[in-house]
Amino acid sequence: LVTTTALANDKLVEMQENASDWVMQTGNYANWRWSELDQINKDNVGELQVAWTMSTGVLRGHEGGPLVIGDMMYFTTPFPNNVFAVDLSDEHIIKWKYEPQQDPNVIGVMCCDTVNRGVTFAPGEGDRPDIILLQQADTTVVALNAETGEVVWEAVNGDPAKGETATMAPIVVKDKVMVGISGGEYGVQGHLTAYDLNTGEQAWRAYSTGPDDQILFDPENTTHLGEPVGADSSIKTWEGDQWQLGGGTTWGWFSYDPELDLIYYGSGNPGTWNPSQRPGDNRWSMTIFARNPDDGMAKWVYQMTPHDEWDYDGVNEMILADLEIDGQTRKTLVHPDRNGFSYTLDRETGELLVAEKFDPAVNWATEVVMDPSSDQHGRPQVVEEFSTAANGEDVNTTGICPAALGTKDQQPSAFSPKTKLFYIPTNHVCMDYEPFRVSYTAGQPYVGATLSMYPAPDSHGGMGNFIAWDAAVGEIKWSLPERFSVWSGALATAGDVVFYGTLEGYLKAVDAETGDELYRFKTPSGIIGNVTTYEHGDKQYVAVFSGVGGWAGIGLAAGLTDPTAGLGAVGGYASLKNYTDLGGQLTVFALPDRVTSGQ
Amino acid sequence: LVTTTALANDKLVEMQENASDWVMQTGNYANWRWSELDQINKDNVGELQVAWTMSTGVLRGHEGGPLVIGDMMYFTTPFPNNVFAVDLSDEHIIKWKYEPQQDPNVIGVMCCDTVNRGVTFAPGEGDRPDIILLQQADTTVVALNAETGEVVWEAVNGDPAKGETATMAPIVVKDKVMVGISGGEYGVQGHLTAYDLNTGEQAWRAYSTGPDDQILFDPENTTHLGEPVGADSSIKTWEGDQWQLGGGTTWGWFSYDPELDLIYYGSGNPGTWNPSQRPGDNRWSMTIFARNPDDGMAKWVYQMTPHDEWDYDGVNEMILADLEIDGQTRKTLVHPDRNGFSYTLDRETGELLVAEKFDPAVNWATEVVMDPSSDQHGRPQVVEEFSTAANGEDVNTTGICPAALGTKDQQPSAFSPKTKLFYIPTNHVCMDYEPFRVSYTAGQPYVGATLSMYPAPDSHGGMGNFIAWDAAVGEIKWSLPERFSVWSGALATAGDVVFYGTLEGYLKAVDAETGDELYRFKTPSGIIGNVTTYEHGDKQYVAVFSGVGGWAGIGLAAGLTDPTAGLGAVGGYASLKNYTDLGGQLTVFALPDRVTSGQ
Ligand SMILES: O=C(O)c1cc(C(=O)O)c2c(n1)C(=O)C(=O)c1cc(C(=O)O)[nH]c1-2
Ligand SMILES: O=C(O)c1cc(C(=O)O)c2c(n1)C(=O)C(=O)c1cc(C(=O)O)[nH]c1-2
Repeated sequence: LVTTTALANDKLVEMQENASDWVMQTGNYANWRWSELDQINKDNVGELQVAWTMSTGVLRGHEGGPLVIGDMMYFTTPFPNNVFAVDLSDEHIIKWKYEPQQDPNVIGVMCCDTVNRGVTFAPGEGDRPDIILLQQADTTVVALNAETGEVVWEAVNGDPAKGETATMAPIVVKDKVMVGISGGEYGVQGHLTAYDLNTGEQAWRAYSTGPDDQILFDPENTTHLGEPVGADSSIKTWEGDQWQLGGGTTWGWFSYDPELDLIYYGSGNPGTWNPSQRPGDNRWSMTIFARNPDDGMAKWVYQMTPHDEWDYDGVNEMILADLEIDGQTRKTLVHPDRNGFSYTLDRETGELLVAEKFDPAVNWATEVVMDPSSDQHGRPQVVEEFSTAANGEDVNTTGICPAALGTKDQQPSAFSPKTKLFYIPTNHVCMDYEPFRVSYTAGQPYVGATLSMYPAPDSHGGMGNFIAWDAAVGEIKWSLPERFSVWSGALATAGDVVFYGTLEGYLKAVDAETGDELYRFKTPSGIIGNVTTYEHGDKQYVAVFSGVGGWAGIGLAAGLTDPTAGLGAVGGYASLKNYTDLGGQLTVFALPDRVTSGQ
Repeated sequence: LVTTTALANDKLVEMQENASDWVMQTGNYANWRWSELDQINKDNVGELQVAWTMSTGVLRGHEGGPLVIGDMMYFTTPFPNNVFAVDLSDEHIIKWKYEPQQDPNVIGVMCCDTVNRGVTFAPGEGDRPDIILLQQADTTVVALNAETGEVVWEAVNGDPAKGETATMAPIVVKDKVMVGISGGEYGVQGHLTAYDLNTGEQAWRAYSTGPDDQILFDPENTTHLGEPVGADSSIKTWEGDQWQLGGGTTWGWFSYDPELDLIYYGSGNPGTWNPSQRPGDNRWSMTIFARNPDDGMAKWVYQMTPHDEWDYDGVNEMILADLEIDGQTRKTLVHPDRNGFSYTLDRETGELLVAEKFDPAVNWATEVVMDPSSDQHGRPQVVEEFSTAANGEDVNTTGICPAALGTKDQQPSAFSPKTKLFYIPTNHVCMDYEPFRVSYTAGQPYVGATLSMYPAPDSHGGMGNFIAWDAAVGEIKWSLPERFSVWSGALATAGDVVFYGTLEGYLKAVDAETGDELYRFKTPSGIIGNVTTYEHGDKQYVAVFSGVGGWAGIGLAAGLTDPTAGLGAVGGYASLKNYTDLGGQLTVFALPDRVTSGQ
């Protein structure tokens, strides 16, 4: 039976096959951030030039990147989340600009800068035009007519007065758009919510914590490491009603496997960073979810960091790739987690295949237990010295690696089906962490810890590495030291080049096999956007946002100077101000005609 | 007698001879905006590439440009007027950044965006270090140690509570720094003020209007068109005390002739734009001044627009060049005025040599009378139809060309000693002007006219031209039509190239002889900065600010949409929003190594 629903789905699947376009933030449903384009390749990338540039008219952290569909480019800015439609075939004219009217008070309850990870495209169908979807900082989900910029519908996903905000890029699956929510530092009960693409009506909502009918779990059929979760799997891991402030927000990247018909995403930290205040595993914070996109029901889950004591949100991207493991091709999901372990799971069943540290500095746990027969199966083995729960409230636990912003945070990795390697932008940062008792007031920070951050000791002195990761075995193939965390997303291409940006503002291109640097260019501001590529008029372009900010750049972005301000990030990145300043620009690169015309 | 004073002067004169540096905003004391560098020339400029970029961290109108002295680059931003020192030899690191603390209320009394036309360099001498001078928006003049960014001294030049603000770049002559003041739309009595470079103490102040001891006129020796001005030359051209609100502000470009030891600058419009409220010639508004830099005494003056009825401020740059006129080499001063006439004067005597329209659209006057024996000598012959005074209060005079922002506004011209041509960025805009009665309240707008602006009718439809002007005869050599006013400053080079920027954001390079376009690049935002060039490590660079704004871009910069808002500029430039958005970036261009190494 071919339903119209299935058709819409097919259209988006088909569109991502077209390498000329960049039809979704993640490159494809599998989150590869990969392009088949190879006009720019490892032999000529050194000749890259800036082709055109554009200011977004907004400062602070520019995450995400532009979408390209045919002649049109679409992107959004940090708060106030202006959306631009730019005509690539006509002098880059701004065909329309959508300027949401948002209460600026929302800025005060955004934990980690005024970022937005981008707009999402939904192909038209029947009466429905092509649509550009945005979740604004204030959680309003808005569907814009891609042709005119007119509002087709709006939906309210949360309430900033309770600390509910939004930064993530929606995902469109079939006739629905799914969005997450931010506010883990405000006691928000995280959820994933699906809206009807035609009307904006809510189709379903799946909380990360709470009773089974709120988390959309089937006690018999939803599994954790192969076992049914049983009834009340979330609420029995919390004291009393604490799950209501349980965090587990959903502000990261989502993926979808059309064949298995499952969506994947992770949940963030449990509510309050003071672990002593919330005994238990705090399920399902810090968890990977596989859900049915039609009704939201969970097929399987896996909790990476039970009873988090370090703010190691589990929201990082899930990259869907078929890898050969122990001689067998497996449908895997690869997830480099904030806690410093990169997990390779069977994405159909949730079976844990690999869990290895992707930064040797990681010290809070020795390993993740892989033996299915152990009662510790899948659990990290915490090192007592670095347990902020064991050390207790008002004790400063020092030297924890990674810091709260993890070995990797929102900055998404890329995957090359040619090299079978995962290119991961990482942090190389450690921390001191002192939990303290905090009480909940709606709309007020519910954090309960004082942090300070610094480069990983006894290493290269820098705060980041850009690495190539072999997820089939869990090994670093190569690692490029960086002065600061690599807070930008990577792009891998069929030209055997991998691109990423740095906090100082360099766009860098490296050899996909060896990591050798092939090109660098200093863009106007620190890069925390994600590199994208597209083709227009027979020319391949590489595009990236500049605009320093995000959690790593919050000192610059928000003008903070106290080292423990910005949830502890300000001190570690203080010297960033010598390298760059606030910005908000798109820089687009291409090869000179001389090169593309075959020299 | 070689005094230390004379030495300081010599040092700056000497430094401007060094084409590697860009030691003053105007290129040299003569305001040529010319460079002897010719690595980039008309044959290879088409291969220009973006070499590096930098965001200033501030949005809105970026006028002026960077200075380069050796390995260091210095620049300032629009309000809050942050000053950057950037190390060209070390990854463009921000060596220091000065962040003035200014009351943001000053923004509300800046007439034409939050612009600043740049910092000024003063070479060290004795105990005094090299200094970077800035006049902040709030009129504080600050001297910064060029090495460290520390404040050496500060002086207060005006009071924003009375509408006194600042936007201009100071000029250093011998042991003094001279600054002007803005506020012609607030009834400010304009003045030029000199401060001691060592101490910041006021040396002298010369008002534009008022009694002789305030305007520093010698009734016997100060001349107007060759005649002594006589006593009370200013106050007798005003009714009662009106000269106290007389305007004549001094926010443009200054020049200096070391040989004649004279500084040159112009004064702005008389107070209130409603001419009926201030009968008389309103001297010395709208006037070119030649003054002695040591004591401020005026040698000669020339009033271009007596009794202004159109806001044709006379502040545009004075370019000092020796030109052959009627077979004789004359020491001239060339001044393309806002009123649409370009004036060539003898800069020693103030004799009027040429006064011709530099846009054929100019219609408010038929000519400037050149006959010295006429009682109309030097006066424009006003066309009654376009006289807002003749038509009177509350009457809308329509179709006046140019508009209030003139055939040229602050955007400075360049001069090539090779072609002997002046490259003038112009406006091609006309207006309707309706004066109304207004009363004075300190710190409140004292404008008294409603304006609307539009492209010059029956022409190419655009709002600007970039022209080459032969100032010896007063003729347009060539004229390039532009969609919008060319609000950026030009640069001419020994490579036979002329550069300018457009409001859409293009940097353009044209052939100095023919005007043929040789190169264009779309920078991140509209360009109202002035193009500069320098050499570093054997490479020639061309640098320009992007950041749309200024009066022409005030709609975008301040978010205004009512067509008559922004003193009438919003409507005419409304479509600019389709081409660019707010920004604040430096883009630096160079030739690829392949080209500079001789292919
Ligand atoms: O708990 C949350 O709801 C939440 C939200 C966000 C966000 O929405 O950006 C971040 C985080 N947490 C967070 O822990 C974090 O490290 C982080 C980094 C960034 C960023 O954009 O740089 N956002 C967030
Ligand atoms: O009368 C004044 O004091 C005054 C000041 C300024 C300024 O300081 O920028 C401008 C003007 N007038 C003015 O008339 C004008 O056209 C203008 C344009 C600009 C600009 O930077 O785009 N400033 C000013």
